[in-house]
Amino acid sequence: MSETAESDRLLPHRAAFPALAVKNRYYFNYGGQGVICTPALEAITRNFYHIEALGCFSRAAGDWMMGEYEATKAAIAQAFQVNADTITLTENTTVGCNIAMWAVDWQQGDRLLLSDCEHPGIIATALQLQKRFGIEIDYFPLFDLRNTSADGKDSTAVVELIAQNLQPQTKMVMLSHVCWNTGQVLPLAAIAAVCHQQQTLLAVDAAQSAGMLPVNLETSGVDFYAFTNHKWWCAPLGLGALYIRPEIFDQIEPVFVGWRGLLSDPPNLQWRRDGSKFEVASSTYALYEALRIAIAHADSFASQLQRYQRICELSAILWQRLEALPHINCVRQTAPESGLVSFYVDSGIAKSPAQIAKELEMEQQIFIRAIPTPKCLRASVHYLTTLDEIDRLVEAIACCISAS
Amino acid sequence: MSETAESDRLLPHRAAFPALAVKNRYYFNYGGQGVICTPALEAITRNFYHIEALGCFSRAAGDWMMGEYEATKAAIAQAFQVNADTITLTENTTVGCNIAMWAVDWQQGDRLLLSDCEHPGIIATALQLQKRFGIEIDYFPLFDLRNTSADGKDSTAVVELIAQNLQPQTKMVMLSHVCWNTGQVLPLAAIAAVCHQQQTLLAVDAAQSAGMLPVNLETSGVDFYAFTNHKWWCAPLGLGALYIRPEIFDQIEPVFVGWRGLLSDPPNLQWRRDGSKFEVASSTYALYEALRIAIAHADSFASQLQRYQRICELSAILWQRLEALPHINCVRQTAPESGLVSFYVDSGIAKSPAQIAKELEMEQQIFIRAIPTPKCLRASVHYLTTLDEIDRLVEAIACCISAS
Repeated sequence: MSETAESDRLLPHRAAFPALAVKNRYYFNYGGQGVICTPALEAITRNFYHIEALGCFSRAAGDWMMGEYEATKAAIAQAFQVNADTITLTENTTVGCNIAMWAVDWQQGDRLLLSDCEHPGIIATALQLQKRFGIEIDYFPLFDLRNTSADGKDSTAVVELIAQNLQPQTKMVMLSHVCWNTGQVLPLAAIAAVCHQQQTLLAVDAAQSAGMLPVNLETSGVDFYAFTNHKWWCAPLGLGALYIRPEIFDQIEPVFVGWRGLLSDPPNLQWRRDGSKFEVASSTYALYEALRIAIAHADSFASQLQRYQRICELSAILWQRLEALPHINCVRQTAPESGLVSFYVDSGIAKSPAQIAKELEMEQQIFIRAIPTPKCLRASVHYLTTLDEIDRLVEAIACCISAS
Repeated sequence: MSETAESDRLLPHRAAFPALAVKNRYYFNYGGQGVICTPALEAITRNFYHIEALGCFSRAAGDWMMGEYEATKAAIAQAFQVNADTITLTENTTVGCNIAMWAVDWQQGDRLLLSDCEHPGIIATALQLQKRFGIEIDYFPLFDLRNTSADGKDSTAVVELIAQNLQPQTKMVMLSHVCWNTGQVLPLAAIAAVCHQQQTLLAVDAAQSAGMLPVNLETSGVDFYAFTNHKWWCAPLGLGALYIRPEIFDQIEPVFVGWRGLLSDPPNLQWRRDGSKFEVASSTYALYEALRIAIAHADSFASQLQRYQRICELSAILWQRLEALPHINCVRQTAPESGLVSFYVDSGIAKSPAQIAKELEMEQQIFIRAIPTPKCLRASVHYLTTLDEIDRLVEAIACCISAS
């Protein structure tokens, strides 16, 4: 990509984001939280006042909120090429993962298979299931295969590893679409196929994939796909979603429930037959439009596939430049097919990853994060990232290391 | 209360609420949703931009969010005279009730005792517990005792009724502090005492009490107290809380979990030893200040006790005026000690409660709601309500009925 072409198209598009307009600031934490564009921020303000103007708890406000709810589910469903009734709105990724993991009628001796690259919140959930139902938790060594790619010829290695680790009692496999620590992208369709061969459910933590890469959830074959919208979609905090494959709807049960899942009141209680069965009660409807605006704003720049291609081009550049630095080794031996570039700092360097991340933020307004497992640093590049930003990050890390 | 005194103090205070400033609008749905004051609305806008200015996923923004989180827990805890570590932040009342109801290590044959006045979302949760764990659900006939009061000489009737319905296998009693349909206030401390005599947990749906009446949660003796802040506290939608009595902390378990409850990462996973153990992951931190502002704004008018006294005075007036109307019968035979005034419309009247509520909103901008069980209308009065509004509501109902 030429820098001129980038400036012509990207810089005006980036100007919509107040967080990116701050002078001499370099943002590489999209994997933690996205940045919100001004039209989305304005929508939040407008909608809070709009609810007051409509009378708060009124038919008018209720109809408006229901319209927002449906439009938002529809927008999410469209982005993933599925029907809106497969979507459950949640507060964040982890709630969606919890819904999925608790939806199974677990019996003592059942097994849950996780990769060894899952987020601590997921492992915590697995341990609670173990405590409550006496299930067994197995981990397959995905980290060792972190250099395989989803689409390349070696993608079968991960699928074979999972197949080897499936046991007759394995009721569910829980893994990330894009690993939060290595940036590896997993081949979901092939994994779903081996899971389904033995009636094992496949639940996916999509925190790092939703909004980053194109996904057709129907053809992916996954049973659950849980994500937040505040990372790669650049929507506000507190608004996530969960996809549930329609074919499994009758074999799973919600844990937390409320009026949102009810079609009729007790005593003749009837459940809705869509994703709302897994929702609970009131949420911040005033935020919903901001997500739709965020998606539309990204789409106005380029298609999801084009944005993903740009992300991969940028992360390959960053990966290559970091690999070339002394005392720095990337966690992957090949460029990641995602926006997450993780890298180790030599044990000879006195500064810890956390200290380096702190120093970069405090002294230079460069935002990257430290990761606990493996102990490393992670820089996220989005389609919004510029080559200038990457230059600045690489220079700063080189400088920070040499001063150590 | 004299109307002059009311105008002098209340009207400037009410002017802070855009929803109440709409000309010829009369709001009686505080039990559904409160109204938000302008300083709280401004704080929401300010904080969304502030997070962008601080760098979104940055140390600065993280520290700010953590400060908001702690300040908000502290404000809630102060309002209920308990320590902040007893508070879990949730999305709404029903999530808090779900946390409480699923926290017990239910075994087949255990019993859950509910009043027959609980919200459909709670009954739905009980039915899911029954399906998952094979527990029995019992209902005690609270509606028949709807005319007893929490503090009066006849408050013992409710306590005796609960005592009679407790069985050796009853692990939990779940009831409302203020019943959403009758407006009855339950004597929590006496109920907690009979529950605790036989190691039964007392969980309370506080959707209609938090922000309406003064509560000292420590002396109340309740084990769980779940509420939202968007009703009587007049805070934004999507921000609730749950109190958990510290003494039961070690005998209960969270169901949904995530990073918010973790003190250290796996494999040496350690849980936080406070309410955050029952929280999951990211939420809309930008809303939190609005709750603190809402509480402070209410406190600037009068103490919680004084506001509650005003609510009771106003609801007594409304109750009396409605009782005096032909074809209208209040659900309670005495004025409620709460802001909820429910009333039946004679079966001879052709319009259903839902039709009447719709007509009042569409034609006169008077906001009340229809309730399904019992089939009736409900008007909520807050300390913000004026005598003029009550006049207007009563006139409109009289007119609507006579035109029927």
